[in-house]
Amino acid sequence: MRIALTGLGPMGSAMARRLIAAGHDLTVFNRTAANTEPFAALGATVAPSPAEAVKTADIALTVVSDDTATEAVTFGPDGVAEGLPPGGLHIVAGTISIALADRLDTEHRARGQHYISAPVLGRPPAAEAGQLFIMAAGEAAQIARARPLFDAIGQRVFEVGERPMQANTVKLCCNFLIFSTIEQMGEVFALAGKAGVERAAMLNVMTESFFNAPVHKNYGKLVVDGVFDPPGVKVSLGAKDVRLLLQAGEQLAVPLPFGSIVRDRYLAAIAQGEKDKDFAILGRHAERDAGIES
Amino acid sequence: MRIALTGLGPMGSAMARRLIAAGHDLTVFNRTAANTEPFAALGATVAPSPAEAVKTADIALTVVSDDTATEAVTFGPDGVAEGLPPGGLHIVAGTISIALADRLDTEHRARGQHYISAPVLGRPPAAEAGQLFIMAAGEAAQIARARPLFDAIGQRVFEVGERPMQANTVKLCCNFLIFSTIEQMGEVFALAGKAGVERAAMLNVMTESFFNAPVHKNYGKLVVDGVFDPPGVKVSLGAKDVRLLLQAGEQLAVPLPFGSIVRDRYLAAIAQGEKDKDFAILGRHAERDAGIES
Amino acid sequence: MRIALTGLGPMGSAMARRLIAAGHDLTVFNRTAANTEPFAALGATVAPSPAEAVKTADIALTVVSDDTATEAVTFGPDGVAEGLPPGGLHIVAGTISIALADRLDTEHRARGQHYISAPVLGRPPAAEAGQLFIMAAGEAAQIARARPLFDAIGQRVFEVGERPMQANTVKLCCNFLIFSTIEQMGEVFALAGKAGVERAAMLNVMTESFFNAPVHKNYGKLVVDGVFDPPGVKVSLGAKDVRLLLQAGEQLAVPLPFGSIVRDRYLAAIAQGEKDKDFAILGRHAERDAGIES
Amino acid sequence: MRIALTGLGPMGSAMARRLIAAGHDLTVFNRTAANTEPFAALGATVAPSPAEAVKTADIALTVVSDDTATEAVTFGPDGVAEGLPPGGLHIVAGTISIALADRLDTEHRARGQHYISAPVLGRPPAAEAGQLFIMAAGEAAQIARARPLFDAIGQRVFEVGERPMQANTVKLCCNFLIFSTIEQMGEVFALAGKAGVERAAMLNVMTESFFNAPVHKNYGKLVVDGVFDPPGVKVSLGAKDVRLLLQAGEQLAVPLPFGSIVRDRYLAAIAQGEKDKDFAILGRHAERDAGIES
Repeated sequence: MRIALTGLGPMGSAMARRLIAAGHDLTVFNRTAANTEPFAALGATVAPSPAEAVKTADIALTVVSDDTATEAVTFGPDGVAEGLPPGGLHIVAGTISIALADRLDTEHRARGQHYISAPVLGRPPAAEAGQLFIMAAGEAAQIARARPLFDAIGQRVFEVGERPMQANTVKLCCNFLIFSTIEQMGEVFALAGKAGVERAAMLNVMTESFFNAPVHKNYGKLVVDGVFDPPGVKVSLGAKDVRLLLQAGEQLAVPLPFGSIVRDRYLAAIAQGEKDKDFAILGRHAERDAGIES
Repeated sequence: MRIALTGLGPMGSAMARRLIAAGHDLTVFNRTAANTEPFAALGATVAPSPAEAVKTADIALTVVSDDTATEAVTFGPDGVAEGLPPGGLHIVAGTISIALADRLDTEHRARGQHYISAPVLGRPPAAEAGQLFIMAAGEAAQIARARPLFDAIGQRVFEVGERPMQANTVKLCCNFLIFSTIEQMGEVFALAGKAGVERAAMLNVMTESFFNAPVHKNYGKLVVDGVFDPPGVKVSLGAKDVRLLLQAGEQLAVPLPFGSIVRDRYLAAIAQGEKDKDFAILGRHAERDAGIES
Repeated sequence: MRIALTGLGPMGSAMARRLIAAGHDLTVFNRTAANTEPFAALGATVAPSPAEAVKTADIALTVVSDDTATEAVTFGPDGVAEGLPPGGLHIVAGTISIALADRLDTEHRARGQHYISAPVLGRPPAAEAGQLFIMAAGEAAQIARARPLFDAIGQRVFEVGERPMQANTVKLCCNFLIFSTIEQMGEVFALAGKAGVERAAMLNVMTESFFNAPVHKNYGKLVVDGVFDPPGVKVSLGAKDVRLLLQAGEQLAVPLPFGSIVRDRYLAAIAQGEKDKDFAILGRHAERDAGIES
Repeated sequence: MRIALTGLGPMGSAMARRLIAAGHDLTVFNRTAANTEPFAALGATVAPSPAEAVKTADIALTVVSDDTATEAVTFGPDGVAEGLPPGGLHIVAGTISIALADRLDTEHRARGQHYISAPVLGRPPAAEAGQLFIMAAGEAAQIARARPLFDAIGQRVFEVGERPMQANTVKLCCNFLIFSTIEQMGEVFALAGKAGVERAAMLNVMTESFFNAPVHKNYGKLVVDGVFDPPGVKVSLGAKDVRLLLQAGEQLAVPLPFGSIVRDRYLAAIAQGEKDKDFAILGRHAERDAGIES
C-alpha cells in the first residue's frame, strides 16, 4: 500500500519504521525536515507538504500532537484535505477531541474522501514492537482497508463503531482509566502510609491479589519509584487529555466526578511547577495533602 | 491446634469447614445456635458462649459482621476477652475500624493475651476453596503461630506490619480500590454509552488491553450484566466499609476525594431504595446522572 | 457622547433606552433588524453593520451573548475592529472568556484602538433602572472616558485593574458565587428536608440570621418557589458561564473543586432535559439525589 | 425561673451572666470548679455535680463542648438525667449530633422529663450582648416554657419543629453554610488573585453588590486579613462540626458534595499542622493548591 505519514515525532517515527519494514510504500512529511532524513535512508519518499505527501497515497496517516496541529496539517494550506484524491482514506492516530473527529468526518465526506479515527494505546516502544492497541471507528469497509497498516503497528484492533468519534471517546476513556487509577493509588498510598505501611508493601498486596493489571503494575511502579524526571509522558500532555475528556463529557452531557478531581490534580501540579514532570507524579499529591513530605 | 471460632455466617462457616478438614480441633459458637449443628456433625465442639469456646483454645478466631458485633462477642459478658487464657491469641478476620483494632490490641495486651488483625479479601466461595487473600498485622511471632490456620483458609498471607490496625487499613484500601474501580467504570460506560458504544464493547477494550485485573473483569461483568438482585454483597454493607474508610482517613488526617465521591454514590443509592441491591449497582449511577435510563 | 451599541437583546435594549434618555447620541446595530425600530423611533441612528455603526463613534459598546457572537461582530467582516477609528474605545459588556478579553486587548491595541472589559452584574430590569453593577478593567484613562456611559446604566463601577481580562475574571467569580450559593442551599434544603424541616423554614432561618444577602434571598426564593418555567436565566446559559469559569481556572492553573461540582450539576440538568429551565433548578438536584421527589 | 447551668466555658459563662442579670435563680456546675467562683460572687449557687445542680431546677441548661461531654454530664453518674425531677426540662445548647439529640429525647421521655434542643448561632460576645440566634425544636409547650431563658440570651428564636434533632440539623446546616462560604471565597480569591486582583478588591466587589451578608463580611475579612492565630474558633472544632454534618447526611441518606470537599479541606489543614489555627484559614487553601504562597 502507498501510505503517506505526516508527523515524525517519537510515535510517528516508530510507526514509520514498522510500515517500511512491512514493505509498504511510504511517503513522509514532517514540519522539521531534519526528522525525515533517517526515513529517506530507509527508502521512504520525503514530501515538501502534507498535500504533496498524500497526492498519490491510498492512506494518509496523521500522527501529530493535538487538535491544533491536526487541524493545521489537515485543513491548512497544502494540507491533507487539499491533496488527498477522492476515495482516499485519512486516518488520524493522535489523541484528538471528539468535536474534531466529527469535523474531520464531515469535511472529508464533503470532498469525497474517507475518514476513520484510530487512536492508539501504548507508548512509542510498543509501536516500535508492533504491540499497540488500536481503537478504530468509521465505516467498516474503510477499517478493513486499513487493516494491513494496523497489522504493521499493532497487536490488536478494537472496532468500536461506525462513527469516527466513537474511537476517540473510547481512547479518552482509557486515558481517564489510567489517570484515575493513579489517583486511586495515590489515595491508598497516603492512607496506608500514614498507618505506617510503605507504598511498595501496599502495591505488592494489590498486584498479588485483585489489582494486577498493567495499569496497576506499570503506573504503580512509577508512583512508588518516584522518578518523575525525565518524564515518560509529561503532566502538560496528561492535562490536555483530561481537558479533552471533560469536553467530551460536556458535549455529550455526562457528569464525570472522578474526571473533575483528576483535572484539579493536574492544575495543582502545573501551578506547583510540575508541568514537565512525568504525569505519574499525580500519584503523590494525595500524600502531599495528607502532610507527608515527598 | 485448638481453634475456637465465633461467628458462623457464610464466611465463618466456610472457614470452619476448611479448619475441620485440615485436622484442627475446632470449637464453635454462634448466636443463632441452629447454625452450629452441621459443624457438630463434622466433629466440632459447640460452646454456649464465646468465653466458653475460647477457654482451652490456642487461637480464638472471630468472624462477625461489624464493629458492634465484634465488640459484643469480645468485650461483652461471656466474651472472648473474658474467657481466653493468658498467652492465648485472638484473631479478628472481619472488616472492622482501625479504632477498634487499636482497642483490641490494647485491651488484650492488658490481659496478657495476644491480638492480631487478619481481614481477608475474597468472598465465601474463595474461603471454601482455601483461596482467600489474608492481610495480617501484629507481632511477627503471633502471625507465625497462626500460620497453620491461615494455610487452611487462604492462598496467600500478606504481613503488612507490627501494629494490627495496619492490616485493617490495607483491607479498607483494597475495598476502596474495588468501589472506586466500579465508579471509574460507571463514568466510562456513561461517556462511551452516550457516544453510542455499548458497555460490553467498552469493557472488552478494557479487559483485552491494560485493564484486565480481576477487579475489572469481575465487577465490570456485574455492572454490564446489570443483575443486582439477589445481591452478592449489599449496598448497605459496602456503605459500611466506605464509612470505615473515611473514618480511617479522618483519624489519620488523610483527605480522600475519590472516597468521598464513592460515599455520596452509596448514600444516593440508599436514598433511592437500593439498600439491598448488589453494590455493583453503583456502576450505573453515572449513567443515571447522564440521563440514560437503566 | 457618540455611542454605537451592537446587540439589542433584552440587556442591550435596556442599556440603549438608558443611554438615549441620558442624552447620548446613539447609533445601534442588531443582526435582526426589526429590533432596531423602537430605537429609531426614540431618535437613534440605525446602522447596517457594526463597522458602519462605530465609524464616527467615541465608544463602541458591544452587548452580545457569548464569545462566538462577540468575535463575529468584532473581527468578522464589517466588524467593530474594522470600522472603529484610531483612538476609538471598544467596550464589551457581555460575559466572555478571559482568553477573548486578552485577544480583544491585543488586537485593538495593534490597530491603535482602545479596549476595556465592562461586564455587568444584574438582570435587564436592573439595567432599565440604571442599577447595574459594572466591573471595569483596562487603562484608567479609558475607564474615566467611559464614565458617562457607565453612569447612565449602573449604580456602581468597580475598577478592578489595568488588564481587561481582570474584569471578566471578577465577573465569572461573581457568577460562580451565585451558582455555588444555589448548590449550598440545595444541599441544606435536602438535609433539612429529610429531617422534616420545610425549605421555606430553613430559608427563613438563613435570611433572618447570617445569610441575608441578595444572593440568598433572591435565589433562595427561586429554589423554594420552584417555578423554573418560564426561565429568568436558562440552565444552558449558566452552563456556558461555568464553562468559562473552569476555562479561566485552567488558563490560570487554579483548581476549583466547588466549580467542578457545579459543572456536573449543570451537565446532569441538561442530560435530564432541563436545558431551558431557570438555572435555579440546580438547587433541587441535591434533593433529587437524596430521593426526595420534587 | 430556677435554672441549672452545666458548663462554664466562654459560651456558658456569657449565658450565665445574662441569666443572672435577667433575675433568674441560677445554679451552676463546672468540672473545673475554679470557673464557678465569679458566678458565686454574682449570687449563683454552686453545685457539686450536674445531678445536684438540677435537683430543684425548672430548666437544666447544658452548654458543653461535644457529644462525649454532653453524654457524660447527662447520662454519667451524678448526671442531669439522674437528678432532674419528673416534669423538668433539659435543654442542650451545644452543637451535638442528631443521633444524640434523638437519644436525649427518648431517654428523658422514658424518665418523665422533657427535652428540647436549642443550639445557637453566634459567638460568646454575641451571647454576652443577648444577641444570639437560637434554633429550638421539641414540644411547642416546652419551647414556650423556655422562652424567658431564650429572651435573656438571644435576639431571636427560630422554632423549627417538634422533634429536637431538627434544631440540630438546622444548626449543622448553618455551620455548613459558613464553611462552604469560606471555601467559595477561597476559590474566588485564588482565581482573582492569579489574574492579579487582590483579595481585598475582590471582597469589596462582593460586599458592595449581591454578596453582603454577615457570613461574607465577617469571614471574608478574616480570610483577607489572614490573622489565624490566636484563633476565634479552631480548625479542630470546625472539623468536628463538619463530621457531625456528614454523619447527619449519612443517617438521613443525603449526599453532600460540598460538605465532602469542606471535610477534605479540614483534614488537609490538620495534616499540615493547622489544627489550632482559626478555621478561616481554610479560605487560603485554594490559593495554596494554585501555587500562591501565603
